[in-house]
Amino acid sequence: MTNKETKATVHFAGNDFFVGITPSGHAQAIETDSTRATAATPMELLLIALGSCTGVDVISILKKKRQHVTGYRIEVSGERREDFPHRYTRLQVKHIVSGRGVSSEAVARAIELSDTKYCSVAATLRGSAEIVTSYEIVEEDQANA
Amino acid sequence: MTNKETKATVHFAGNDFFVGITPSGHAQAIETDSTRATAATPMELLLIALGSCTGVDVISILKKKRQHVTGYRIEVSGERREDFPHRYTRLQVKHIVSGRGVSSEAVARAIELSDTKYCSVAATLRGSAEIVTSYEIVEEDQANA
Repeated sequence: MTNKETKATVHFAGNDFFVGITPSGHAQAIETDSTRATAATPMELLLIALGSCTGVDVISILKKKRQHVTGYRIEVSGERREDFPHRYTRLQVKHIVSGRGVSSEAVARAIELSDTKYCSVAATLRGSAEIVTSYEIVEEDQANA
Repeated sequence: MTNKETKATVHFAGNDFFVGITPSGHAQAIETDSTRATAATPMELLLIALGSCTGVDVISILKKKRQHVTGYRIEVSGERREDFPHRYTRLQVKHIVSGRGVSSEAVARAIELSDTKYCSVAATLRGSAEIVTSYEIVEEDQANA
């Protein structure tokens, strides 16, 4: 297979709104007035793209390692340049895994594999932003206490 | 003002779905099974983020330059690495501006300003992917013929 190619169309919808249509045909409103904040902004989309991209790697690796995971979320924070352009300079990705007896080594290894090998979004963003990962494991009984 | 800081949370929702919540509090489903393709995937989000980010710069600059724009869309294509990680290596951004007597110089300058100075998403992605811009101006009468 040669390089994958994809194409999105983004329509200006007036009043600082855009409607993005992804290559797979899904439309969504995009907000570009961050004060009004009625929908995700372009820079916000990068954060949830990063979280979900690394997330699917981590959860599937933990599944293969037969870890008993009962809940999983990723928190993504971004720091931006003060001057134009306000690109991300540092992205912090924290993985919070709930479960029963989940191995710390397994989580650390899953995050490392995603971060260094599999996650396409992280690899795309890393060119300009440092990506720092961390994790927390929550024992399920404790979480539900 | 110091660096802006933002935080998103991405929840694993089972079956290769994630729900991303942006810092401004907007939730959206994210698909990570690109064959099923029921919602935007993480890598697709980067394309519409780029289009809308540069789009708002261009449309606002054209407005300041008093150009008579009646329609505007941006097409964004991405080429990815064949090997892991499948990051974007090249992003093509085509601006299609419809209007009456829109100045080619004004459009070219607006795109250049966004690309080199204002667009935070482009500046973030450019670290790993080459970004190539182009534009087309459609005279409104012709577009409606």
